[in-house]
Amino acid sequence: MKNKQQNILIIGAGLCGSLLALRLGQRGYNVTVFEMRPDLRKTDISAGRSINLAFSDRGNKAMKLVGIEDKVKALCIPMNGRMLHDKEGNTFLSNYSGREHEYINSISRGELNGLLLTEAEKHDNVTIHFNKKCKSVDFEKTTALFQDYNTKKEFVEDADAIFATDGAGSAMRKSYYLGKKFLFSFSQDYLTHGYKELSILPTKTGDYKTYKNALHIWPRGAFMLIALPNLDGSFTVTLFLGYDEGEYNFNNLTTPEIVTEFFQKEFPDALELMPNLVEDFFDNPTAPLGTVKCSPWHYKGNTLLMGDSAHAIVPFYGQGMNASFEDVVEFDAVLDKHEGNWETVFTEYEKNRKKDTDAIADLAIDNFHEMKDHVGQAIFQEKRKIEMALEKEFPKDYSSKYSLVTFNEHIGYREAMLKGRAQDKAILNMLSDGVISPTGNMKDILNKVKQETEAILEDDRVAGLK
Amino acid sequence: MKNKQQNILIIGAGLCGSLLALRLGQRGYNVTVFEMRPDLRKTDISAGRSINLAFSDRGNKAMKLVGIEDKVKALCIPMNGRMLHDKEGNTFLSNYSGREHEYINSISRGELNGLLLTEAEKHDNVTIHFNKKCKSVDFEKTTALFQDYNTKKEFVEDADAIFATDGAGSAMRKSYYLGKKFLFSFSQDYLTHGYKELSILPTKTGDYKTYKNALHIWPRGAFMLIALPNLDGSFTVTLFLGYDEGEYNFNNLTTPEIVTEFFQKEFPDALELMPNLVEDFFDNPTAPLGTVKCSPWHYKGNTLLMGDSAHAIVPFYGQGMNASFEDVVEFDAVLDKHEGNWETVFTEYEKNRKKDTDAIADLAIDNFHEMKDHVGQAIFQEKRKIEMALEKEFPKDYSSKYSLVTFNEHIGYREAMLKGRAQDKAILNMLSDGVISPTGNMKDILNKVKQETEAILEDDRVAGLK
Repeated sequence: MKNKQQNILIIGAGLCGSLLALRLGQRGYNVTVFEMRPDLRKTDISAGRSINLAFSDRGNKAMKLVGIEDKVKALCIPMNGRMLHDKEGNTFLSNYSGREHEYINSISRGELNGLLLTEAEKHDNVTIHFNKKCKSVDFEKTTALFQDYNTKKEFVEDADAIFATDGAGSAMRKSYYLGKKFLFSFSQDYLTHGYKELSILPTKTGDYKTYKNALHIWPRGAFMLIALPNLDGSFTVTLFLGYDEGEYNFNNLTTPEIVTEFFQKEFPDALELMPNLVEDFFDNPTAPLGTVKCSPWHYKGNTLLMGDSAHAIVPFYGQGMNASFEDVVEFDAVLDKHEGNWETVFTEYEKNRKKDTDAIADLAIDNFHEMKDHVGQAIFQEKRKIEMALEKEFPKDYSSKYSLVTFNEHIGYREAMLKGRAQDKAILNMLSDGVISPTGNMKDILNKVKQETEAILEDDRVAGLK
Repeated sequence: MKNKQQNILIIGAGLCGSLLALRLGQRGYNVTVFEMRPDLRKTDISAGRSINLAFSDRGNKAMKLVGIEDKVKALCIPMNGRMLHDKEGNTFLSNYSGREHEYINSISRGELNGLLLTEAEKHDNVTIHFNKKCKSVDFEKTTALFQDYNTKKEFVEDADAIFATDGAGSAMRKSYYLGKKFLFSFSQDYLTHGYKELSILPTKTGDYKTYKNALHIWPRGAFMLIALPNLDGSFTVTLFLGYDEGEYNFNNLTTPEIVTEFFQKEFPDALELMPNLVEDFFDNPTAPLGTVKCSPWHYKGNTLLMGDSAHAIVPFYGQGMNASFEDVVEFDAVLDKHEGNWETVFTEYEKNRKKDTDAIADLAIDNFHEMKDHVGQAIFQEKRKIEMALEKEFPKDYSSKYSLVTFNEHIGYREAMLKGRAQDKAILNMLSDGVISPTGNMKDILNKVKQETEAILEDDRVAGLK
């Protein structure tokens, strides 16, 4: 291997940046990381970001790559399915998969990030600086301008290659956009919904107030509430709601009375677990939900966007962190092939990867509608019932779209999307036409679904569609 | 009607801005227009923009609204179809419709814009200022900052409502984006192809060197050349080519020899008509092809984006100008309903209109692939043959996607897209499966196409797809 003394600059020590620093450190590069926030291992900062996250197989693939799978497992709370709550307080557990070993996990963002930072710093060739905010990147000179949070002094850092893992609001992406030195395709798309984090605290004895091993959902058509467990017995609860549509929205939930009325009417069983609702509601910010896509991610062999800075997505597939971790795995594989030529590495990485991050962005929007609405509709529930049975009876022959995306890390998001959407369309239409039903013979249904799915994909191919 | 003395500020006196000024002038508003360029009726400026454009039924609907249909007709050269040129110089005319009265027109951007300016200025309540460039808009105060091109002095203009019709690079859209006062969804997407304008000059006697009443296309799979006629006997020729892909591209066409070699090999019959090729090629700029979408278009009742500033599209459907003209027709209809309340007018206009401008943006990308590639493929040619026959034999019962978009101005672009795409998919799949063929009974084919199209739309509806 050549050029091992190369100096790598990473902007941002969040989940993606700290994993990248660890991996490039393991590979022998001189890695310097600058992070705008203080060291989260020493300070309690949630900084408006989700407190816990869904961690699943694609993310775990990256943990295996860097050899910390077991340490991460200790931070995980398995969630076997969605616990659906209706307005009357009835609950129904809908498993994520018909295969018992397939489940997702709730994990603390802070704990996981801290672990990655600590693992990265074990390498002498990795240095991490905190409280240094990136202001801009000169991608032609391969330098970045930073400001020290405490002294306010600005300084310039030089490197052989710069990686921006500075999130959805990336300073380097802004430099690409404003620089106008090349054609930069870029989009930011906001939903008309925002979100607000709330909490269900533990019982006095430190126990969970409701079922621990599930992702709880209160789907209400136009809006929803969800809850994920934390190791300390609490749940982090998130309300997804329109800013200004519908009878209740973030713009008109302005008093303790109306907030309580809203929860009493829509989420009475949750309200019972949340005596702290009003305090949380007015203490915590309302944040927007946006998707960012862009291209190119790299400028020559000088600079590369990775993680949310290249592809921020809405949280509804639980894949944001997993996708960013998978970036590092994909990047590492390209590095194996072309190490020594950054331009080739960056070009091939983007060529391989972008179709998949575009797909998960679109899938996450799909799931927004599925979670808040479809999960409550009869035909979607029948589809789910059939898919669970197929996965259980034919574990090697069938995977639902959710399983393809979440538990099949050997195929890309795009392939999972195309196959998964065609399967959904096949099942929903055969249900609607009475060709199949949840009480039918499952072997027969499996064959029909496979045949119809292939026919749908073939029709799209002939028509020149994707 | 109330508030007729309201002061309206229009930024940009291009095709959309001058039409809007004319219409609002007719409605009695005090209209002031500021345009960054000099008066194109007095100066010869092409300013890097297309010299001629495709004008069709949606655009004409707007000309009828403002009462200048006949004056515009005098500027039009009918194009009945696409004249396809293969590599051997063979030509084949493919009509745009099986109905004889359906055709598109080539029109001079400068002549048409000049006519609209002159018509607008006939109204005492309309004033147009040239050489005044908009720098930014304060959408909260409803003011705009301009700079005078000659004196370089800056000045601020106040209004009751501001309309930005300042094109794809809109200053007001930039103010929306940079202002961060509201969630602004925005995308700019570039193709990997650019374009360059060339020309076929008239003969010495002023005649056309090739067939006048067609849009000429030299489709070559990965790139193409097109030509549209001008009233003076010339054709404006446009080369669409990758920046850096393929054997020949804009980055490597750097010498007269290689440019000539490229045309000799790919477009020999065009080269014969273009002794001026090399001069044109190196005199004229290479420009990018981009799509812009955004939302919201308006800020309260203060400001509104219209035309390319709200929705710039690639030129491959010949609908850019027509869509912007249709904006004014749609806006005028909403104004009839809610005149006096700008916020209601702007909100309802965007609600009605955005789905359609999003659709034409996507259709224009579809047609890029159709024009450069599909038109040369056997199955697409068979489809076209069937559709022409259906339109001719059953003029009231069938319209191809192209006809729905171009000649059916009573339905929106989105409806045209959904129905047209489903029809294409139906015909291509039935051709591929041998269910229909161009030599079959047309009444039978019509029924099969209608039935299959409806089935495709129904399957999408059941699956929750649009």
